Amino acid sequence: MNLLLLRDEDFLPDGSARLTGRRMVHAHEVLRAAEGLALRVGRLDGFVCAGVVLRVSDEELLLRVDLSEPPPARPGIDLLLAMPRPKALRKVLPAVASLGVDRVVLVNAARVEKSYFSSKVFDDAFELFCEGLAQARDTRPPELIVRERFRPFVEDELSGLFPDGARLLAHPAAASGVPARNGRAVVAIGPEGGWVPFELELLSAHGFVPFSLGPRPLRVEVAVSYALGALSR
Amino acid sequence: MNLLLLRDEDFLPDGSARLTGRRMVHAHEVLRAAEGLALRVGRLDGFVCAGVVLRVSDEELLLRVDLSEPPPARPGIDLLLAMPRPKALRKVLPAVASLGVDRVVLVNAARVEKSYFSSKVFDDAFELFCEGLAQARDTRPPELIVRERFRPFVEDELSGLFPDGARLLAHPAAASGVPARNGRAVVAIGPEGGWVPFELELLSAHGFVPFSLGPRPLRVEVAVSYALGALSR
Repeated sequence: MNLLLLRDEDFLPDGSARLTGRRMVHAHEVLRAAEGLALRVGRLDGFVCAGVVLRVSDEELLLRVDLSEPPPARPGIDLLLAMPRPKALRKVLPAVASLGVDRVVLVNAARVEKSYFSSKVFDDAFELFCEGLAQARDTRPPELIVRERFRPFVEDELSGLFPDGARLLAHPAAASGVPARNGRAVVAIGPEGGWVPFELELLSAHGFVPFSLGPRPLRVEVAVSYALGALSR
Repeated sequence: MNLLLLRDEDFLPDGSARLTGRRMVHAHEVLRAAEGLALRVGRLDGFVCAGVVLRVSDEELLLRVDLSEPPPARPGIDLLLAMPRPKALRKVLPAVASLGVDRVVLVNAARVEKSYFSSKVFDDAFELFCEGLAQARDTRPPELIVRERFRPFVEDELSGLFPDGARLLAHPAAASGVPARNGRAVVAIGPEGGWVPFELELLSAHGFVPFSLGPRPLRVEVAVSYALGALSR
C-alpha cells in the first residue's frame, strides 16, 4: 500500500482525516505511523498529498491533509475484455486499476463459461480496484461495465461508450505488431481460447484493427499488463 | 495448457510419446483427446509439432510426434529482479516463462526480507516455469539464478553472465522513458519499496541505464509483464 485511500466518511468537519480498521492497522504495523510522520494519502476520485500524522492510538489514526496534488497521469486506455475466469479476474482488477485504465468492459464470448458471470469476485470488485489504486498512488477506480450479451453490446452500446480514439484488437494471427498510438485507445483482448470468427468479424466491422502481441498465447492477467506496456510508448 | 510438454522419459523407443498422470488427465478432460485428434506438443528444450493421438485409455495417452517446428521466437531479454515476496514469485515465474525470458536472476536487496530466500516456492520453480511454457507453447524454461548477496553478485558475476547487450534499470524517478532496443537487454527491476541509493549507484557504475516505466509504482508481477511489453517494440 503506497497510498492510504480516503473516502468521504473519513473526513472530520475540520478537514482532517480519521482512519480506523484495516487501513489504520496497516498504517500502524507496516508504515510505522507515529506523530509527525508524513504518509501518502489520496481522496477517492480526488487529489493526493503527504498527510501528517496528528495522533495515533489503538483505535484511530488522525491525519492532517492538504489534498493539493493531482494523482498520476493516466495512459488513456480502455479495455474490452472477454470475461476472464474468476481466479484470473481477481488478478486483473487490481492490475488494471494500478495501470490507470479508465474503463473496463467485461463481455461475454463464445469461449467464455456462462458461470463466470455469477462469480463472487464481483462482490469484491471495488475493493480489488482500491488495492490497485493504493499500490499505484492513484485515486480513481476504473469504471466497470459487465455485459452478458456480446452482439447487442457491440452493435448498440459500443459507439456510445467509445465515441472516439483508436479501436484495437489483440489477435495472435494479426499481420502487424503493436501500432503507434496517438490519443485514446480501446483495446479488445479475447478469452484464453481466442475469439471465434464471428466475434472477430463483428469487432472488425465496428472498427477494431487487429494487431499482434507476438506469437505467444498469454494468460489474460499477463496479456493485459503486457499490452498496456506495449501501448505505453 | 496450450501445449503438452514432453520430457525424455515420455518417449518410447519407437519415437512415440506416452503420457500418464496430470498431463494425461488434462488431455482427456480439457482437450477431449480422442484417437486421431491432433494436439500441440513440444519436447522440453526442444522442438514442437502437432502430435496425433494414437491411443487413449484411462491409464495412458499415446501420441505420434514429429517434432519439426521451432518453438516461438524469444524477445532476447533477461531479468535481474530483487527477490519478490513468495506470493508474487509464484506469479512471476510462470509469467516470465510464458514471455520467453532467457535468464532470471533473483537477487537480494536492502528492501528484501531475508526470509524470502527460504520460500517453498523454489521447490516448485521448475513446475511453475513449465506451466508458463505450456501456456505460451514454448519449450525452454528460463535459467534461474538465485543470489543472496547483492554486491558480490554485481561486482563479480554480472559481467560474465551478461557480457553484451543493453543494461537497463527500471526506476520511477528516471528522466527518460522506455528506450529503443536493438538486440539483447538485461532489465533490473527493484523490490516494491525500490532500490536504495547504494544499490542504484552500484548498478549505474556497472552500466545500468535508468529508465522510467511511468509514475506508478506497480506490483512486481504487473511490472514484469508491463516492462516486457514496453520493451517488445
